[in-house]
Amino acid sequence: MRSFQRGALDLRPVVLTPGVSRYAEGSVQVEFGHTKVLVTCSTEERVPPHLMGKGSGWVTAEYGMLPRATHSRNQRESAKGKQTGRTMEIQRLIGRSLRAAVDLSTLGPRTLTLDCDVLQADGGTRTASITGAYVALVLALRSLQKAGTISKLPKLTPLAAVSVGIVKGEVRVDLDYDEDSTADVDLNLVATADGRMVELQGTAEHQLFDRKALDAMVDGGLAAIQKLTAAQAQVLG
Amino acid sequence: MRSFQRGALDLRPVVLTPGVSRYAEGSVQVEFGHTKVLVTCSTEERVPPHLMGKGSGWVTAEYGMLPRATHSRNQRESAKGKQTGRTMEIQRLIGRSLRAAVDLSTLGPRTLTLDCDVLQADGGTRTASITGAYVALVLALRSLQKAGTISKLPKLTPLAAVSVGIVKGEVRVDLDYDEDSTADVDLNLVATADGRMVELQGTAEHQLFDRKALDAMVDGGLAAIQKLTAAQAQVLG
Amino acid sequence: MRSFQRGALDLRPVVLTPGVSRYAEGSVQVEFGHTKVLVTCSTEERVPPHLMGKGSGWVTAEYGMLPRATHSRNQRESAKGKQTGRTMEIQRLIGRSLRAAVDLSTLGPRTLTLDCDVLQADGGTRTASITGAYVALVLALRSLQKAGTISKLPKLTPLAAVSVGIVKGEVRVDLDYDEDSTADVDLNLVATADGRMVELQGTAEHQLFDRKALDAMVDGGLAAIQKLTAAQAQVLG
Amino acid sequence: MRSFQRGALDLRPVVLTPGVSRYAEGSVQVEFGHTKVLVTCSTEERVPPHLMGKGSGWVTAEYGMLPRATHSRNQRESAKGKQTGRTMEIQRLIGRSLRAAVDLSTLGPRTLTLDCDVLQADGGTRTASITGAYVALVLALRSLQKAGTISKLPKLTPLAAVSVGIVKGEVRVDLDYDEDSTADVDLNLVATADGRMVELQGTAEHQLFDRKALDAMVDGGLAAIQKLTAAQAQVLG
Amino acid sequence: MRSFQRGALDLRPVVLTPGVSRYAEGSVQVEFGHTKVLVTCSTEERVPPHLMGKGSGWVTAEYGMLPRATHSRNQRESAKGKQTGRTMEIQRLIGRSLRAAVDLSTLGPRTLTLDCDVLQADGGTRTASITGAYVALVLALRSLQKAGTISKLPKLTPLAAVSVGIVKGEVRVDLDYDEDSTADVDLNLVATADGRMVELQGTAEHQLFDRKALDAMVDGGLAAIQKLTAAQAQVLG
Amino acid sequence: MRSFQRGALDLRPVVLTPGVSRYAEGSVQVEFGHTKVLVTCSTEERVPPHLMGKGSGWVTAEYGMLPRATHSRNQRESAKGKQTGRTMEIQRLIGRSLRAAVDLSTLGPRTLTLDCDVLQADGGTRTASITGAYVALVLALRSLQKAGTISKLPKLTPLAAVSVGIVKGEVRVDLDYDEDSTADVDLNLVATADGRMVELQGTAEHQLFDRKALDAMVDGGLAAIQKLTAAQAQVLG
Repeated sequence: MRSFQRGALDLRPVVLTPGVSRYAEGSVQVEFGHTKVLVTCSTEERVPPHLMGKGSGWVTAEYGMLPRATHSRNQRESAKGKQTGRTMEIQRLIGRSLRAAVDLSTLGPRTLTLDCDVLQADGGTRTASITGAYVALVLALRSLQKAGTISKLPKLTPLAAVSVGIVKGEVRVDLDYDEDSTADVDLNLVATADGRMVELQGTAEHQLFDRKALDAMVDGGLAAIQKLTAAQAQVLG
Repeated sequence: MRSFQRGALDLRPVVLTPGVSRYAEGSVQVEFGHTKVLVTCSTEERVPPHLMGKGSGWVTAEYGMLPRATHSRNQRESAKGKQTGRTMEIQRLIGRSLRAAVDLSTLGPRTLTLDCDVLQADGGTRTASITGAYVALVLALRSLQKAGTISKLPKLTPLAAVSVGIVKGEVRVDLDYDEDSTADVDLNLVATADGRMVELQGTAEHQLFDRKALDAMVDGGLAAIQKLTAAQAQVLG
Repeated sequence: MRSFQRGALDLRPVVLTPGVSRYAEGSVQVEFGHTKVLVTCSTEERVPPHLMGKGSGWVTAEYGMLPRATHSRNQRESAKGKQTGRTMEIQRLIGRSLRAAVDLSTLGPRTLTLDCDVLQADGGTRTASITGAYVALVLALRSLQKAGTISKLPKLTPLAAVSVGIVKGEVRVDLDYDEDSTADVDLNLVATADGRMVELQGTAEHQLFDRKALDAMVDGGLAAIQKLTAAQAQVLG
Repeated sequence: MRSFQRGALDLRPVVLTPGVSRYAEGSVQVEFGHTKVLVTCSTEERVPPHLMGKGSGWVTAEYGMLPRATHSRNQRESAKGKQTGRTMEIQRLIGRSLRAAVDLSTLGPRTLTLDCDVLQADGGTRTASITGAYVALVLALRSLQKAGTISKLPKLTPLAAVSVGIVKGEVRVDLDYDEDSTADVDLNLVATADGRMVELQGTAEHQLFDRKALDAMVDGGLAAIQKLTAAQAQVLG
Repeated sequence: MRSFQRGALDLRPVVLTPGVSRYAEGSVQVEFGHTKVLVTCSTEERVPPHLMGKGSGWVTAEYGMLPRATHSRNQRESAKGKQTGRTMEIQRLIGRSLRAAVDLSTLGPRTLTLDCDVLQADGGTRTASITGAYVALVLALRSLQKAGTISKLPKLTPLAAVSVGIVKGEVRVDLDYDEDSTADVDLNLVATADGRMVELQGTAEHQLFDRKALDAMVDGGLAAIQKLTAAQAQVLG
Repeated sequence: MRSFQRGALDLRPVVLTPGVSRYAEGSVQVEFGHTKVLVTCSTEERVPPHLMGKGSGWVTAEYGMLPRATHSRNQRESAKGKQTGRTMEIQRLIGRSLRAAVDLSTLGPRTLTLDCDVLQADGGTRTASITGAYVALVLALRSLQKAGTISKLPKLTPLAAVSVGIVKGEVRVDLDYDEDSTADVDLNLVATADGRMVELQGTAEHQLFDRKALDAMVDGGLAAIQKLTAAQAQVLG
C-alpha cells in the first residue's frame, strides 16, 4: 500500500499555506505529504548585468535543505563552503520553470528571487518547490501592485510540478522517499493545467524505458498537475 | 510602547513547539515574538578526533538563517561559499552554552549536533536558539533512552538565554529588531534558573556602561531567564 | 539552410577518432560538426566509500571546457575556484548515462572516470560527450581485459545522445550553437539503438510544448541515435 | 606560584614598543609576559560602502597568528583557505572595541585598519591586541595630523583589555596559557581607566559562576585595566 | 638511447599546427615529441585596472592540464577549487616571457590572454607552451591588423623556450618525462634567436651544479632555441 | 648612492638573531637591511604520504607576509581565502632550496617545516628567508639531537641566497625595494660557500640579458653568498 493509502495516480495531501513570512513580498509553505518547503519571493528593483537597459525583468531561484530535513543529518552547505551539484541542478530547474510562468518583458526592470528551503524532505522536494514558488511569485506581484510599484500584473502562466516514476512495474505519481529510492524510472514534469509542458526530466534509474512507458508517465503526470494547479487557484482566489 | 504592549522587563510571547521534525531525534520550534527558529538535535554514535578513546561525549551547534528571514534578503551563505563571522560567533556561543547543560563525561561516546535555523528574525535569534536548543537536546536524549541506546539520562543543567539592553536610557529585556538596532548597550546572557551564569556578553554599542548599568542588566536578564526555564520545564513535563 | 547543408533530421558530420591519448586506458576525440570533445576513460582499482565491500564497480564523469572553446573567452573554472552549475549539471548527466551503459555489478571493484574536455564548442557538447564516452569506456574495458585485470567484459548497453529542438517551428536534430541559442524548445535525449531511453531532458526555452511536439522530438531523436550507435559500432569493430 | 612570581591580581610584565614598523602610520609591539603581538595601524582615505557620503570614518581590525606562535604548529589560515571561527570572533571583538575608542563622526571619511599579528602566544592574545591597538591607533592619528591630513585629533577614549579567570578557586588577572587552559571561568574585559566598560565576555569553562564571582572578576579586571591605560599613557607621552 | 633516437643536444620532433581553433584570434597546437599543448590567444579591448589610462597594453597567460594528460590521472583543478602552486608558477612564467616578446607600450589599450592547455604531457609542457604562445600571439596580432583594430603590429621579439638538464652526467636538451624525473639538474631557458635571455631557472634536483655545468647547459639551451625560433619563423611565414 | 652607503657588490647589514621563538625547535630573525623575516623550524615525527615507509625525511616551507609589511597595506591572504601565485612560487623555492641543504635519507621519518613570515619588506624577502631558514633548520636539528630524538645530525650543506640585478646599467647585489622595482634584470641565486649552485632564477624585467651579463651577475652573487654563509657559520658556532 502507498503512503496515505492512496492509489498509484493519486497525490499525497497537498497543503499550501500562504503568507507564512512576515517580511517577504510573497511566501507560502507547501506540503506534499511529509515534505515541507518554505518558499519566499523577494523583489528587488534591479536586474542582473546582462539585462541592464533592456527593459525586461528577471526571475531566479535558490534551493536549500536544512541539515536535518532528512532521515540522517547532511553536512550544511555553508559549512562545506559550496553547494552540491544536486542543489545547483535543482535551483536551475526551479528558476527556468518560473521564468516560463511570467512574461519577463512586461515585468519591468526588477528581479524576483524565489528561495525554496526544505524544512522536511520525504521525496518530491523539487516539485513541491516549483508548485509553491508559483504561488509565492503571484503573491509577491500582487503585493507590488498593492504598493503601487507596478500598475498591473504581468501576463502569468499558471504551472505546477510533480514527480512520476515506475515502481514495482507500476506508474506512480508523487513518489515519497521510499518509492523514489527504489524507482526503476524517475521523471519530473513541470506543466500547465492545459497540458503544455515546461520541463520534462526522465531518468532510467535501474531500468531503461520505452515510448509506451514514457507515454504512461506523461499521462499520469499531466493529470496530477491539473489537481495541483487547481489547489494553487483555490489559494490564490 | 514596546512591541506586544509589554513592560521594560517583560519577554515577548514565548512559544515552544516540540516534535516539529519527523526525523530528528529531538526538535522544537521556538518563537520569541516574531522571531522563529527551528531547532533539531541529531545524534551520532561517534565523537570528534580529539575525544576518541576518552569516553566523553560531545555537543556542538550550527546556526543558519534563511535568506529572507529578515526585512531585506541576505545572500545565502552556501552560495557565498563561506559562513560570516557573525554566524561563526553565534554557533560557537550556542555550542559552548549547551556543553554546559549536559555532563559530557556521562554522555557516552556520542555527538549531539544542534542545528538552529532561523525561519524569521526579529531580534534575539541567538537567545531563542539557545533556549530552544536545551529543549531539543533533552528530547533527543529521551529518545536515545527510549531506543535503549543509553540506559539513563546524563546529568542535565537546565539553562536558557535572553538579550538585555539599554534603550532610550532604560534597561529592557528581550529586544526586538528595532530596539536591538538602536540600543546603546547590548548584553546577551545565558544562565540557569537559580541565577548561575554560563555566558555573559556585553557590548557598548553607542555608549559605555558602568557597574551600576551592568548590575541592572544582569538583574533583568536573570529574572527573565527564570521565566524561560519555567516555559522549558512545562514543555518537557 | 542548416549548417553542413543538412535536413532538419540530419546529424552534422560525426567523427570518432579512437586512441588519441597515449596514456589513458581508453580515449576518443568526438566531433559533431565543429564541436570537438576529447574524452578519456581512466581506470582505478578502487571504489568510492559508499560501495566499499559491496563488490560493485562505479562509473563517474567530469566535464570541462577550455576557456576559448567558445566564440568569446570564458573565465577558467580553476581560476574562479569553482565549477559552474551548468558544468555540474552536465557531468552528472554524463555520469548517470554511462552508469546505464555498463552492468556495474559485474564490473568488479573498480572505478572508471570519464573526462570530457571540450576543445571547441558549437552546440551539443553534452551529447557529443556522452556519445564519445561510450566509446572510450569500451576501449578502456578492452584494455583492462588485454592486461588481464578483468577476464571478460561486463555486460554493455550501447547508447548515444543527441539534442533535438524546435527551431523556427520545425523539429530539428543535433542543433549547432546558433540554432541552440534561438530554439523555442530544447531536448536532450540519451537512448539505445533499439529505442529504449536512458535520459530525456526537455526544456521550454521560449515556448511551451505539447504532447504532439514531444512525440515528434522523441521520434527525431531516436532515429538520430540509431545513426550514432552505428558510428560507434563501426569504430569499435 | 604564578608565572613571573606575581600575585593573583597582578599583570605579567607589560612592554609597549612603539614605532616598530618603518612603513605603518602607527605601530607597536605589545608584550604581556611571553605573549607578543605586532600591531600596525594603516590609514586609507576612503570608507566602506555603507558609510559613503555620510561623513563618518571607520575603524576595523584583522587578527592573525603565526603558525608557530604556539607550543605546537597550527596550519596557516591562508593555506587552509579560510579563517577559523576563533579568528573571526577575535577580530570582530578588536574592531568593536577600537570603534569605541575614537569618535568616528569626527574622524573624517577615512578608514583605520588595525592588524594584530601574534608572534608568540602565551595566553591573552586578544587582550594584548586591544591594548596595543589603542596605542597604534593614536600614533597613526598623530602621524596623519603631522602630515596635515587631519587638522586635529578626533575625540579619543583611552581603553585597554585584560583577561580574568577563576583558577583553582581564585580570581586571577591576565592568565597565561597554562592558567587559561585550566580556568573554570574565563572573562575578557575591555574598559576605560575610569571603569566604564566597552566589552565584557564571560564564559563558564568548567563551572558556572554566580553574581559574587562576576563581581570579583570585574573588580579585578577594572583595577588591572587602570595599570594598562597608565602604561599606554606613558608610551604616548 | 634517448627517445626518438636523438643525441644529447637534439630536440624531439617539433610540430607547430597553426589555426587549430575556429574561434580564437590566434591559435596553435604545439608538439614537442609526445607533449601536446593547445594554445589560444584571445584579445580583449580593455586593460587591467593598474594600466587604465596609461596607454599601454597587457599580455597574460593561463595554464592548465587535462586530468588524464599524464600517466596517471590527476584531480581536476576546478573540482579541487584551486590551482596548484605548480600551475601558478608556470602561468606566471609564461606571462612574463610573452610580455618580453611584445612592446606593450605600442600594443594599445588591449589585453592578449594566452591559454595553454596541455592535452598530453611527456615533459617540457612549460617550454612547449611558451614556444607555442609566441606563435599564437603573432597570429592574433595579425588577425587584429586584418580586422583593422590595429593599423600596424607592435614591435616583436621572437623567443622560444627549452628545458635542459644533467642526466646520467650528461647535458641533455628537451627532456622527456622519464629524463625529467631522474635529472640531477633541471634548467628552463627562455631566450631569443640571437642568444639574449628572458628567463633562466635552474634547479639542483639531486646534485648541486657549478659554473662549468651552468655554462654547458646554457650553451646547449641557446643552440636549441635557435632551432625552435627557426620553426616558429617557418610557420609564421 | 645605494642605501646604507654601500658599493654595488656589497650586502646590506645582515643580522641573524637566533632563538627568537620560545616554542619552535629552531628559530631566527633575519634582517637584510630593513627587510625582517621571522623564521621558525617546526619538527614533526611523521612524513607526507608519498614518503611513508621509505625511511626518508622531508623538509617543506611556507611563506607569508604581514599585511602591513610593505609601504601600503596588502589584503591578508587568509581573508582572501587563498595564497597568491607569488606566495606559492616563493614557498616552493624555499622548500626546494632547504631540501638541498640536508640529506633527507639520513634525516629519519620526520618533517621539518620552515615558516618564513615577513615582518617588514624592503626587497629580498625570499633570499633573506632562505638564508635564515638554513640557520633555523640547523638549530632545530641540534635541539632534536639534544632531546635524544636523533643521535647524530644528518649531513648538512650550508647554503644561503642573495638577489642580484642590473640597475642603471650596473650589476648590483642584494637589491632593496627601490632598486628591485626599477631593475632591468633580476636574478635570485641560492648557492653554497664553495660556489655550487642550488637555484638560479633570472628574469629580464625591462631588458634582455646576454651571457656576459649573466656571468657578471653570477660572479657577484657567489661572492656575496660567501659572506652570508660566513655570517651563518658565526651564529651557529
